[in-house]
Amino acid sequence: MLLFNELFSFGALQQILSDESYLQYLLDFESALAKAQSHSNTIPDQVAQKITAQCRADNFDLAALAKQTAQSGNLAIPLIKSLTESVSLRDPDAARFVHWGATSQDAIDTAAILQLRDTLALIENDLHRLTEILATLANEHRKTPIVARTWTQQALPTTFGFIVAGWLDAILRHRQRLHESRPGILTLQFGGAVGTLAALGPNGPKVAQALAQELHLTLPETPWHTHRDRIAEAAALLGLLSGTLGKIARDISLHSQTEIAELSEPAVESRGSSSTMPHKRNPVTCAIVLQAAIRVPGLVSTILSVMPQEYQRSLGLWHAEWETLPEILRLTGGALHHLTDMLPHLLVDKNRMRQNLELTHGLIFSEAVSIALAQHIGKAAAHQLLESASQKAIASKRHLKDVLRDEPSLRTHLSDEDLTRLFDAKNYLGSAEQFLQQVVARARAFPAPAAT
Amino acid sequence: MLLFNELFSFGALQQILSDESYLQYLLDFESALAKAQSHSNTIPDQVAQKITAQCRADNFDLAALAKQTAQSGNLAIPLIKSLTESVSLRDPDAARFVHWGATSQDAIDTAAILQLRDTLALIENDLHRLTEILATLANEHRKTPIVARTWTQQALPTTFGFIVAGWLDAILRHRQRLHESRPGILTLQFGGAVGTLAALGPNGPKVAQALAQELHLTLPETPWHTHRDRIAEAAALLGLLSGTLGKIARDISLHSQTEIAELSEPAVESRGSSSTMPHKRNPVTCAIVLQAAIRVPGLVSTILSVMPQEYQRSLGLWHAEWETLPEILRLTGGALHHLTDMLPHLLVDKNRMRQNLELTHGLIFSEAVSIALAQHIGKAAAHQLLESASQKAIASKRHLKDVLRDEPSLRTHLSDEDLTRLFDAKNYLGSAEQFLQQVVARARAFPAPAAT
Amino acid sequence: MLLFNELFSFGALQQILSDESYLQYLLDFESALAKAQSHSNTIPDQVAQKITAQCRADNFDLAALAKQTAQSGNLAIPLIKSLTESVSLRDPDAARFVHWGATSQDAIDTAAILQLRDTLALIENDLHRLTEILATLANEHRKTPIVARTWTQQALPTTFGFIVAGWLDAILRHRQRLHESRPGILTLQFGGAVGTLAALGPNGPKVAQALAQELHLTLPETPWHTHRDRIAEAAALLGLLSGTLGKIARDISLHSQTEIAELSEPAVESRGSSSTMPHKRNPVTCAIVLQAAIRVPGLVSTILSVMPQEYQRSLGLWHAEWETLPEILRLTGGALHHLTDMLPHLLVDKNRMRQNLELTHGLIFSEAVSIALAQHIGKAAAHQLLESASQKAIASKRHLKDVLRDEPSLRTHLSDEDLTRLFDAKNYLGSAEQFLQQVVARARAFPAPAAT
Amino acid sequence: MLLFNELFSFGALQQILSDESYLQYLLDFESALAKAQSHSNTIPDQVAQKITAQCRADNFDLAALAKQTAQSGNLAIPLIKSLTESVSLRDPDAARFVHWGATSQDAIDTAAILQLRDTLALIENDLHRLTEILATLANEHRKTPIVARTWTQQALPTTFGFIVAGWLDAILRHRQRLHESRPGILTLQFGGAVGTLAALGPNGPKVAQALAQELHLTLPETPWHTHRDRIAEAAALLGLLSGTLGKIARDISLHSQTEIAELSEPAVESRGSSSTMPHKRNPVTCAIVLQAAIRVPGLVSTILSVMPQEYQRSLGLWHAEWETLPEILRLTGGALHHLTDMLPHLLVDKNRMRQNLELTHGLIFSEAVSIALAQHIGKAAAHQLLESASQKAIASKRHLKDVLRDEPSLRTHLSDEDLTRLFDAKNYLGSAEQFLQQVVARARAFPAPAAT
Repeated sequence: MLLFNELFSFGALQQILSDESYLQYLLDFESALAKAQSHSNTIPDQVAQKITAQCRADNFDLAALAKQTAQSGNLAIPLIKSLTESVSLRDPDAARFVHWGATSQDAIDTAAILQLRDTLALIENDLHRLTEILATLANEHRKTPIVARTWTQQALPTTFGFIVAGWLDAILRHRQRLHESRPGILTLQFGGAVGTLAALGPNGPKVAQALAQELHLTLPETPWHTHRDRIAEAAALLGLLSGTLGKIARDISLHSQTEIAELSEPAVESRGSSSTMPHKRNPVTCAIVLQAAIRVPGLVSTILSVMPQEYQRSLGLWHAEWETLPEILRLTGGALHHLTDMLPHLLVDKNRMRQNLELTHGLIFSEAVSIALAQHIGKAAAHQLLESASQKAIASKRHLKDVLRDEPSLRTHLSDEDLTRLFDAKNYLGSAEQFLQQVVARARAFPAPAAT
Repeated sequence: MLLFNELFSFGALQQILSDESYLQYLLDFESALAKAQSHSNTIPDQVAQKITAQCRADNFDLAALAKQTAQSGNLAIPLIKSLTESVSLRDPDAARFVHWGATSQDAIDTAAILQLRDTLALIENDLHRLTEILATLANEHRKTPIVARTWTQQALPTTFGFIVAGWLDAILRHRQRLHESRPGILTLQFGGAVGTLAALGPNGPKVAQALAQELHLTLPETPWHTHRDRIAEAAALLGLLSGTLGKIARDISLHSQTEIAELSEPAVESRGSSSTMPHKRNPVTCAIVLQAAIRVPGLVSTILSVMPQEYQRSLGLWHAEWETLPEILRLTGGALHHLTDMLPHLLVDKNRMRQNLELTHGLIFSEAVSIALAQHIGKAAAHQLLESASQKAIASKRHLKDVLRDEPSLRTHLSDEDLTRLFDAKNYLGSAEQFLQQVVARARAFPAPAAT
Repeated sequence: MLLFNELFSFGALQQILSDESYLQYLLDFESALAKAQSHSNTIPDQVAQKITAQCRADNFDLAALAKQTAQSGNLAIPLIKSLTESVSLRDPDAARFVHWGATSQDAIDTAAILQLRDTLALIENDLHRLTEILATLANEHRKTPIVARTWTQQALPTTFGFIVAGWLDAILRHRQRLHESRPGILTLQFGGAVGTLAALGPNGPKVAQALAQELHLTLPETPWHTHRDRIAEAAALLGLLSGTLGKIARDISLHSQTEIAELSEPAVESRGSSSTMPHKRNPVTCAIVLQAAIRVPGLVSTILSVMPQEYQRSLGLWHAEWETLPEILRLTGGALHHLTDMLPHLLVDKNRMRQNLELTHGLIFSEAVSIALAQHIGKAAAHQLLESASQKAIASKRHLKDVLRDEPSLRTHLSDEDLTRLFDAKNYLGSAEQFLQQVVARARAFPAPAAT
Repeated sequence: MLLFNELFSFGALQQILSDESYLQYLLDFESALAKAQSHSNTIPDQVAQKITAQCRADNFDLAALAKQTAQSGNLAIPLIKSLTESVSLRDPDAARFVHWGATSQDAIDTAAILQLRDTLALIENDLHRLTEILATLANEHRKTPIVARTWTQQALPTTFGFIVAGWLDAILRHRQRLHESRPGILTLQFGGAVGTLAALGPNGPKVAQALAQELHLTLPETPWHTHRDRIAEAAALLGLLSGTLGKIARDISLHSQTEIAELSEPAVESRGSSSTMPHKRNPVTCAIVLQAAIRVPGLVSTILSVMPQEYQRSLGLWHAEWETLPEILRLTGGALHHLTDMLPHLLVDKNRMRQNLELTHGLIFSEAVSIALAQHIGKAAAHQLLESASQKAIASKRHLKDVLRDEPSLRTHLSDEDLTRLFDAKNYLGSAEQFLQQVVARARAFPAPAAT
């Protein structure tokens, strides 16, 4: 719904996904086809110019096309008919070369690829922005202690920077995947009625090559009308990306809970304020990103499930892609954009992180103590001593450090200073900072997307 | 996309699913709430009138609301704010009773239910139409022989009417399910901020009851903010329906193949004609129905997967329903409508059905002969004789009847007349007609949907 | 995997879903068919006895059947062949009546229905247990205050009993749905090769009726080989149920977080203890229930997507159900069972609930104060005053009550006693208890499942 | 179910996916960890030997482990406990180094990666076999005419070899994708309790590197406990592959229909014979492959939807992967294997292909004639003439060639010889053979998988 376009998507993306743009992508195919045929001497130059001149979306009547689409079963048929009429009004001879040698699916699939390319360009730009934001955030908090949680239970200390580095590392992997898969995905569709380009006689491959050059798309070995793995690959890659965005949003939303309050979304204007509860500020961006991460998998599943398309053109399976792929683009691109816009303003409460490290009265440091002690009395004995002390601490609501101070068998080996050091989060962070630095270095070396 | 609304949906349904209607459903909730509070003496009558007067969708600025929705995280917040301002301009005192005691989710969920109710009314009307069409078609072809196919291989004779009766029987089950589930699904949402209706003090249940009456919705035992089983039940029921519509379309499309050609979609205007192949007529309606049957399951899966919503209001899971449920309504309702429109004009080629019964040169009658023969020489011997004769018929490309005529061990028991009878499809139809009549009778007795 | 059967499922359910039981369900069909044919005088009594005597799963070689299943494409073919041989050894004449008039799918589908019936009986028993547990828990905590959370943020007070009543209300709806849908789902499949029962001549319907009686299954109007809505309905209903179980587990797991700690899973033996962190106790049951709620939707989507089965027997779509439906039974039944086993031992920390109500320093009571104040100075002014006071409280880290005490414009209308009352959770619970009592009463009146 | 393992999977794959192998993969991790720690001087060599010696799956009690898994929530906990006891019996000092510094998820995730690696090796071998089979088949039929079908309607001629080349081209893309993604996917998991390797002090990275080397796995920049994109990438790639396998099976099954009969599965033993219809032979392999292509998308959707895992270890989402990923491996690997086994024996009926080209009485050649004619009278006039002639041919049931012979406006331009040439399929194949040769050449140059 239009009403949700700003919430779940954003202007530049909605522009790419609009009815008008879709028409234009179809017309770009027809226009490029005419040019390619002129370049390969299949049709006269001036015929190509006549056709190209009419390939402007605003020349066409959307409502009429929608009605005719319902009759013909696809949009290309009435659009080409209308384009042909439009060319014919100016030059009846030129009109007969409109869509020459192509089939509806050539136009529709190539339009989808062009739409995908423009969306990927937006996504790659946002991923680049996100990379820089996360690298900065990770680096800034490379020494900020926070409790790590497993199964939603407090576990051991870590740093907030290391958590962010985990997000960043995943984002870099997505950028790498998109970069590598891009040329294979952005491939021309051009096969004529049944993939043989028979209507073009011996000129087929030559026209196909010129057309691919014209549109800056990869030329495939064979037309791929009912082989949808490239479309499905694109859908799957975006599904993977939306999953990682969901992971970041999941973490932020969990850290934002009233009882944890280590992170919060920025108070941008009225975003997230409640209609009935003035004190509340809802993590709206997280909600947007999570809804995308929840919806995209079902849509990817649809794209995968329509891969077994019949013969040389499918009945129904192909149609199921038409709205599903744009929806994946819309939701993933929207989630990425909103998250990237929000993150530079994320509120990080280092004090609260420190306070929360104390909530278990030292229990989260039991492993650290156990390992230190194990060097003296063995792992099993150390583990047992800590387990028993932890139970005591819980039962008596005392701090574990205090309980341990009373353990003679421990005091033989660990001094007060030792204990103080062992109960300080920053002394049990393992290789967090080294890992973080590797990721940040890789992020900073990551090439920016080519300007488009 | 708008460009596909006529193809995948239709006017009356798109009207219900439009942005304008959605706003109006939200406003219908606000208006009914004011009336209910006046009826239950919670607010003065004239205040209710003042509020109600402003609850008209065309008073509001869609584009502005879309922008504010992105800020607040839901549409109800800016809409109620705008409604309040609008009432306030006329009567500042009345304005403070707008949305009194309710939360955003009360309005949004109830709006979804009202949208669902209107869609279900369309669907039930189309199902009623479909019932009559199928009952007529089944009855008309109750004696039309056709070959039954299993694993896409010709198997035994049946009748086309019996195939249609199978479709009809399934449609009746869906009508029954929808009829029984309707009241449970069409349930008011009204709980205030956290489901307790605390803002209304002791008046909560009284207002809730009046509100349910006002909107002709079922009053639930408890508000159901994060209990989504009713929404999911609706989605699942429509998923079931779209599956059966897909089954009907699957069958029609298979029977429409060039090589089978027993059925074809009507030649309505230019529907289904190919851009490059003048002789072709594509089964467009089947494609529409099949794409719906393929897309809806993934959407239902999304609705099911967001059921575990957190606490008293979800973060992201609830949002994932907002566009998904309407999409299920659009695709299922659209598929049903197009199929129902097409079916009265379905072309049935009885001659071709008869010819196709002969394609295997009698092999599809081998079971009939085998059973007749079994009464004389036992099942095993009969099966073996028929299997061997079938192999012979295939190898020699002769008709099975002719091969059998040369089998002395069979001629002892079966005369020429017997064989002629056994190789006539109409003599091996089992209980097809009796089954058909039961279904048609039930269809004719099925109550029409109440006028709405 | 066997290794996960105890974790995700449990003994009695795994028994129903075992290879041995599945064989037996198939044999139960064959046995009942023989009996039905003897009761309807289609075959001699003693033939039926001979067949029935061999219909015991432990007579058959599972490994050999698995191999032959790969050859024939379904299990029924080699099983029936083996059964026929087994009968033939004892009585060659009886052997020819094995599986008489039926097709493989009749046996396979009816076996699936029998397996479903036994699983539903387990599920209904567990739902009955769960109902009693939740009703008791809700009632016990009908006055236990707890903070309600929306978008994971603290919102307003409610009671823990009311939260439980919400779970209970949903469970009752599932029981109602299962109760109503049961007879329609538990329906005999019996149509012979193509649904006409032609091999039985005029006896088809009579045998079908006797067979349905024998198996205590509903007799359908027509065989339903490629009409899968009953199977899909069962899958969808279990999908709905697993969603609600997921909701309950989601809530418990959130309330169990270290920082919230209002609920925790019982410390049963070593359940949930960490390998590395002795102080940790993981909510294992919640994890089990949540993984089911996450996996089942994709499986339901598969079942829905295979509904458009071709002609009179499908190629591949039907096969996709064979393992998918049992997996839905296993996961949903397993989740229900583990949750029901855990819940009576759920640890409820009322003190912690009370403490958490104080975490926001009174902010969660702002709506209560606002409404009380609105009666004196109007809703808008009251809302504004509370919003401003809330900001002050947050900024100055003071309790909202203290901030308000300093507001002269409020003190005119609200006394110290008023404020004390307004900041007490038990005075702002709205209709929570009344709603709860309605649900508990309905639960207690809910009929127990019939003993099976 | 075991009963379906031969049907849907096969021996070598089931071995990899068995409970025993899974235990062994877990133990391989523990064993390699001990070795890696000895190599990096973290533990003594002989301790590592003591541990390694006990890491054999057949030492452990599967049934007991299954029971304990239900208690602890994962399999690694009881397995490690049991392993520790086992080592302890021999050397109590060594026992304390079992699983040293690792967390359960390190073992479980790495075991999943090892299982994935072994499965991918099987898959890559089968893909190599499949490549050779398809290249041979394509080449053999590079000049075999067949009718191309769009929307299941006969369209234009093509060659069977070109259809096979389309399958082959897709398979090569999958091989390329798997080859490129392999190293990124086959990555070690090793982070200790919360990803910092804190228990190993400064030795963490050194041990991690030695462990990756020991297991021949990629060393990641950071541990990836709750970043599941690699797992999801593997699932998605297999989803893509199963879609293409489904496409091939879809085509074969459609070409195998009784009425088309251009292809058929080989008559291997009793595969595909019907229980009731001796003349029938069902395409069992196609059914197996299609059921996989239908089921895998829902499973991939599950894997994608569990990506947003909480904090440093998930509650429930991670658990949802445990059985889902192996099921994707089983179904995709099984489908690939059965298809590859069947294809060399596929029966290709070139005569039937030729006969079917004549079914439309020349209509499928109308485009060829139209294009030839267009050079003389223009595209529009030619299209119109052919459309009208086609209608005449259909109405009069005459061959289009004969109708055209009577058209004076055509006879001016096209001779009898021209018409004969234009109605010969082999003269309207466009670039089919050139496309085919490109693909076959690429297939033959494709590197074989490294021996494993």
